[in-house]
Amino acid sequence: MNIIQNPDSTSLKRTIEQGTADQRIAVLDIINEVRKNGDAAIKAYTEKLDRVSLRSFLVTEEEVEQAYKEINEELLTIIQEAACNIRDFHSRQKRESWMTTQENGTILGQKYTPLDAVGLYVPGGLAAYPSSVLMNVIPAQVAGVKRIVIASPPQENGYLPAGVLVAARELGIREIYKMGGAQAIAGLAYGTETIEKVDKITGPGNIYVALAKREVFGHVSIDMIAGPSEIVVLADDTAKAAEVAADLLSQAEHDERASSVLVTTSLSLAREVKKEVYKQLEPLPKSVIARSSIESYGAIYVTDTLDHAIDIVNELAPEHLEIMTEDPMSLLGRIRHAGAIFLGRYSSEPIGDYFAGPNHVLPTNGTARFSSPLNVDDFMKKSSIISYSQQAMLENGRKVAAFARLEGLEAHARAVELRLEDL
Amino acid sequence: MNIIQNPDSTSLKRTIEQGTADQRIAVLDIINEVRKNGDAAIKAYTEKLDRVSLRSFLVTEEEVEQAYKEINEELLTIIQEAACNIRDFHSRQKRESWMTTQENGTILGQKYTPLDAVGLYVPGGLAAYPSSVLMNVIPAQVAGVKRIVIASPPQENGYLPAGVLVAARELGIREIYKMGGAQAIAGLAYGTETIEKVDKITGPGNIYVALAKREVFGHVSIDMIAGPSEIVVLADDTAKAAEVAADLLSQAEHDERASSVLVTTSLSLAREVKKEVYKQLEPLPKSVIARSSIESYGAIYVTDTLDHAIDIVNELAPEHLEIMTEDPMSLLGRIRHAGAIFLGRYSSEPIGDYFAGPNHVLPTNGTARFSSPLNVDDFMKKSSIISYSQQAMLENGRKVAAFARLEGLEAHARAVELRLEDL
Repeated sequence: MNIIQNPDSTSLKRTIEQGTADQRIAVLDIINEVRKNGDAAIKAYTEKLDRVSLRSFLVTEEEVEQAYKEINEELLTIIQEAACNIRDFHSRQKRESWMTTQENGTILGQKYTPLDAVGLYVPGGLAAYPSSVLMNVIPAQVAGVKRIVIASPPQENGYLPAGVLVAARELGIREIYKMGGAQAIAGLAYGTETIEKVDKITGPGNIYVALAKREVFGHVSIDMIAGPSEIVVLADDTAKAAEVAADLLSQAEHDERASSVLVTTSLSLAREVKKEVYKQLEPLPKSVIARSSIESYGAIYVTDTLDHAIDIVNELAPEHLEIMTEDPMSLLGRIRHAGAIFLGRYSSEPIGDYFAGPNHVLPTNGTARFSSPLNVDDFMKKSSIISYSQQAMLENGRKVAAFARLEGLEAHARAVELRLEDL
Repeated sequence: MNIIQNPDSTSLKRTIEQGTADQRIAVLDIINEVRKNGDAAIKAYTEKLDRVSLRSFLVTEEEVEQAYKEINEELLTIIQEAACNIRDFHSRQKRESWMTTQENGTILGQKYTPLDAVGLYVPGGLAAYPSSVLMNVIPAQVAGVKRIVIASPPQENGYLPAGVLVAARELGIREIYKMGGAQAIAGLAYGTETIEKVDKITGPGNIYVALAKREVFGHVSIDMIAGPSEIVVLADDTAKAAEVAADLLSQAEHDERASSVLVTTSLSLAREVKKEVYKQLEPLPKSVIARSSIESYGAIYVTDTLDHAIDIVNELAPEHLEIMTEDPMSLLGRIRHAGAIFLGRYSSEPIGDYFAGPNHVLPTNGTARFSSPLNVDDFMKKSSIISYSQQAMLENGRKVAAFARLEGLEAHARAVELRLEDL
């Protein structure tokens, strides 16, 4: 983890993961196979890739009941409270249809409608992510989506993690499929004998999931192509080095390609944080992953001015930004690009991962320049409403016809003139 | 144009255009070439594909002045009035950042920020589309985007159509590039020596433009993959056959693959409309295109009940929907999927193309199931705001740590506990 003073520009340029040629071909094969052979293809890939033979992908009532036995009461209460916070925050995002009327009788507006059916991918593998269930399902529910489906890869024992099942059931989700990877994405996008197709797929996943989502994009909607996790901490000399280091490591433990960056005006803080990072790293259960991440994608930038530090933050456009300066709120207006902004020393990033309420599905890889956290809008769409009165047609019909002719579209002009002739 | 009575399901299934293998390879080549050779590559492709040799892509002041001489005063006034209507409608979409506070000191919210730079593609070829300039630029301006760039393919004479230049200048746009096709998309997405890269690309185009947008998706944001235009008219026996036919033809003249469909409860209307379509078709300047479109993608569905008719409309999820029934507004709530909904006989579709105010960039190919008309949100993004107080940390820190450990993320738990220890 190098300390770099007054950089012209950050060296941490990331690129969107396009996958290797082999990975892209493998994903295309899987998608085509699932489109052709449906359930049988998903079953075969699950046997081959997850090493589990399943009679049915659909999680049974018994599996959910068993999951509840494995979760202790205290954790269940925490999950319920987190769900409540997340629902409260997302409810505030929901927008209603609106209309505007004009005296000539014209009515214009936007109609908001929830999507009919969405599929939520919950990554599996070595870890269980009940928080992903909450963060994907709740915005869809707030939007009013009627059919919400979860797909998640089975563990070696053929079951889903108890936390995932309990979180899903707490939210009332009953259509949960034990399938993962590109085969799950293909199954959701195109449907099979037993799985009805959905309109949108959200949720993070590994490179195969990301490539599959890119391939089905257009046929269904997708949320975004998720990359490795990122954190940038913007700090001055009022920050506590141990806390900054701990927050950097909370991203580094996610993935060897996760990126943890400190941008600070204080050289002494920079030096202390570096020391703390290596000190705290050692005893972590995931120290190998965290060390690799810190070595490859960690950095500390020291600037002479806060202005320069803010420029670097905007250039990085991080997924998570923590501001630990004397007056964090005063800097909020100057942050142009960040997925989530955590203000002050008590806003440690994990607070946002689980509990506070805002979504933890966030734009990565610098895409915060143009993307947003997962939100209720992602599960609704708008239709324009246009109701023109006779009076409005009389006032404006000729103008519309003239504009159409300027663009060489005669039938457009005539469609309007037909009404005018009748008036 | 067949009349089909009480269909189980519509036969008009459309699929997303994926392009042929040759087209996909051609587009990839163009993108790679532009990334490698920048301006020189764009110049070479413009010579090869548009058959124009340009010294500079940037439109000059003289070209704009010349364009004003070619547009008559009346049309200029119409363009200005349309711009005013479009700006008024889109201004009502704009949302502000918001925050919510809790008594324990917690602040949560969403910060809205405009994108920094967007590129708007205005299709060219045989027609000029000043309305596309208005429909793409104005939402971006309302959002507050600072840098708005237009790209449009040069005509054979090396200039852009006067209408396009005048519309752009009326909106104050000064960065206009004469370039089209996949090379324009690549230039905007990756930048060249003279063109700075943008964050998002919007606007319709041909199959090469669509494929290029799909390829650069993720590196920049895109609006949607546009397909051929579509109209569905939902009518009962109160509708005027001539008007329905004229509106169907206004889509059919766009493209041989455009789709024009009538869904009606009235067999007599169906028969009259069919007659009218062929009668009105003959004298159209674009009758060849319109006839081919009507023959291949036109259809009339007749149902026994209005309920069934509405089901068909929702299944088609059309780009444009006209409702010409006795009480159109009463059906609005039952329309789940449509890009723009035109209510009543005076709301002829061309009204929305040019003048009323709502956007004419709309979801096609059934993607109205999950996509929206181009709107102000497309040019803004959100950042979550999380400010946790000491009190909030005391109340909730242990719960967050427990949730993190449930997911096997020890460093997350420790980052929070470090704060708790200090309190």
